[in-house]
Amino acid sequence: MSLIVQKYGGTSVGSVERIKNVAQRIAKWRRAGHRMVIVPSAMSGETNRLIALAKDIQPVPDPRELDVVASTGEQVTIGLLAMALKQLGLQAKSYTGHQVRVLTDSAFNKARIIEIEERRIRADLEAGTIVLVAGFQGQDELGNITTLGRGGSDTSAVALAAALRAEECLIYTDVDGVYTTDPRIVPEARRLKSVTFEEMLELSSLGSKVLQIRSVEFAGKYRVRLRVLSSMSEADQPLAVEAASGTLITYEEDTNMEQAVISGIAFSRDEAKITLTRVPDRPGIAYQILGPIAEANIDVDMIIQNTSVDGTTDFSFTVHRNEYAKAMDVLGSKVKNHVAAQALVGDPKICKVSVVGIGMRSHVGIASLTFRTLSEEGINIQMISTSEIKISVVVEDKYMELAVRALHKAFGLEQGAA
Amino acid sequence: MSLIVQKYGGTSVGSVERIKNVAQRIAKWRRAGHRMVIVPSAMSGETNRLIALAKDIQPVPDPRELDVVASTGEQVTIGLLAMALKQLGLQAKSYTGHQVRVLTDSAFNKARIIEIEERRIRADLEAGTIVLVAGFQGQDELGNITTLGRGGSDTSAVALAAALRAEECLIYTDVDGVYTTDPRIVPEARRLKSVTFEEMLELSSLGSKVLQIRSVEFAGKYRVRLRVLSSMSEADQPLAVEAASGTLITYEEDTNMEQAVISGIAFSRDEAKITLTRVPDRPGIAYQILGPIAEANIDVDMIIQNTSVDGTTDFSFTVHRNEYAKAMDVLGSKVKNHVAAQALVGDPKICKVSVVGIGMRSHVGIASLTFRTLSEEGINIQMISTSEIKISVVVEDKYMELAVRALHKAFGLEQGAA
Repeated sequence: MSLIVQKYGGTSVGSVERIKNVAQRIAKWRRAGHRMVIVPSAMSGETNRLIALAKDIQPVPDPRELDVVASTGEQVTIGLLAMALKQLGLQAKSYTGHQVRVLTDSAFNKARIIEIEERRIRADLEAGTIVLVAGFQGQDELGNITTLGRGGSDTSAVALAAALRAEECLIYTDVDGVYTTDPRIVPEARRLKSVTFEEMLELSSLGSKVLQIRSVEFAGKYRVRLRVLSSMSEADQPLAVEAASGTLITYEEDTNMEQAVISGIAFSRDEAKITLTRVPDRPGIAYQILGPIAEANIDVDMIIQNTSVDGTTDFSFTVHRNEYAKAMDVLGSKVKNHVAAQALVGDPKICKVSVVGIGMRSHVGIASLTFRTLSEEGINIQMISTSEIKISVVVEDKYMELAVRALHKAFGLEQGAA
Repeated sequence: MSLIVQKYGGTSVGSVERIKNVAQRIAKWRRAGHRMVIVPSAMSGETNRLIALAKDIQPVPDPRELDVVASTGEQVTIGLLAMALKQLGLQAKSYTGHQVRVLTDSAFNKARIIEIEERRIRADLEAGTIVLVAGFQGQDELGNITTLGRGGSDTSAVALAAALRAEECLIYTDVDGVYTTDPRIVPEARRLKSVTFEEMLELSSLGSKVLQIRSVEFAGKYRVRLRVLSSMSEADQPLAVEAASGTLITYEEDTNMEQAVISGIAFSRDEAKITLTRVPDRPGIAYQILGPIAEANIDVDMIIQNTSVDGTTDFSFTVHRNEYAKAMDVLGSKVKNHVAAQALVGDPKICKVSVVGIGMRSHVGIASLTFRTLSEEGINIQMISTSEIKISVVVEDKYMELAVRALHKAFGLEQGAA
């Protein structure tokens, strides 16, 4: 009688027929004796339709009202999926974010979950009822509707799995797991049987858009056993969660020593680079530059500041391309003169490519192989940033596919190579 | 600084362009100094789309889950309309039924409002904010989402006007008021400048589908000044609510003595007739027949039982045509043998035509003119039912238009005739 949380992505519930198929799959698990909590996304295309409507009305939609509108997609799906399960003769009950309730902070459009009340869900599960919880949404202390941002349903599912101490959290999506890189760019990309939380964090935040990054952080923090798999395949067997297909996301300590050095090549095309040149190098300068950026609710990714040479330094960072204009505006109006920078320069036509692997820590030569490979392809590296388990480079965005393919090959990640 | 509640129907908010127009109209009222509470319906077609999706999944959708799905239409509209108002530089804030909260009973799909909390709305109005409340929806004591049934947004608006003691409740729709009958059937139909609550109750329940019947009851009970008008016309002037166009629904005591005897001809095609023949006539028989019907949540309209002749009586009533099969089933399985009726007969091909007018009470001859008119057209009357302010007849449904036209003319209701 283990408790399983399953999350179904938009494509998996994209039509009446697919909703019925998902219901069949859930029924199989339930009839095998599992207690089930299901978190569906909105039907594919629905969230985009709603956001487009909003933008037709108000080019920059009011954040609070946008969440009121955007959260309806998941509400429709939980109701429909509950009906499909009842049609199969099962007990099912749906809950919106405020009904559960999923308490979040008040950062509309990208709220964070603070707490999930489990009382009602537990009572339903005891009674043998399949519980459906709307993903992507919550409510803040004041009762306002909030949403968790793109891919937020993943985080909803993991947070529920953590709160309920579920045995496993299965994320059903339209790919059958995590790959060494995007198979659309490198057809030889190989599915990973398992990947550590830390690697997954890098892989998902850097562009292998399988899971929302926050869901992975959440799973790591609360030690949720997380598996990514396809809702289109028939491979998963309800009685053997452990042997299910897909990619299992594990804690580092679980992994054996034969783990490959590099697990994948990640990338992101949605980047923009901003530099303030020749900023007088004094304590607090980074805060004076990034403080106003944070206040404007803009997420910063890479941050690079090199040693000062003549008492000044060049300070660079990257932001999501959608927030480039806003960030340039903030810096131009509030920061540039205040910190006495010589110039503010930006480039929205860059991309980031990252070599990721937990084995990298104990192996030298990863950085040099990375740089040599790019050099041999004639790709100029604009920025470099490293962490314990990844090396990221920023290059001109037209080189992205070439860089990914070359690195994937150089590190022997193709099918059959490992 | 009067407080005005305005309700906009689905056609009025049926597209981005129309939502913007409605926002312009509301802005005009707000800028003229009124405090505004707005209740929009779902965009036209949206509720039907959601219900069709539900029926594709589950032919008879689970009532609780249907409300989860169906209530999203209004939630989208309040968000979009709030954005449109903000785009015009106004303060606006949306509330769903659970946020207000609109407390209802637990009769899913046709819940009744028990109480509306006004605290949040009052605070916003004090601050000059335009408040948007999702129509059609509420929540029950247990936090389940409920909906109020077709046209429920009218009731939401009137209930809000009552709770907030609004000066007037304006129901914007796609017709510019209440007519003596449906102009699609009688082109000479005339718009009524005012109509009493009691007449309106008869006119709306009997087929002049301008307002949900419950909203009119509500308005009468709480003495809400209610006006039906078109959102397409430009005639209403924000500074003169009293002189606005449309039809004002008044209390009987407000009407002057020159009121016309008959205010309109109502009709309904969605009727079905059911008769139990030769039921032994003993006390409690009506309850034994209609009790199981009420338990099955089927609304009964006309009820007719004639004097017994040989110790038995024929018991007839009408139900909505959609519930005909269900009612026949209940009677066939549970009632017919129990009450020892000779036969159970039904006819779903009937319609009801009603002559309505508050002046009828003090005038003889209305009934005889009604019957003579139908007789002259060769229309056979199957059932007759009368109240203080109406005479209803059931006739074969193919005669409906003919009956309405003939009666409209016989009572001199055409334009210019009054």
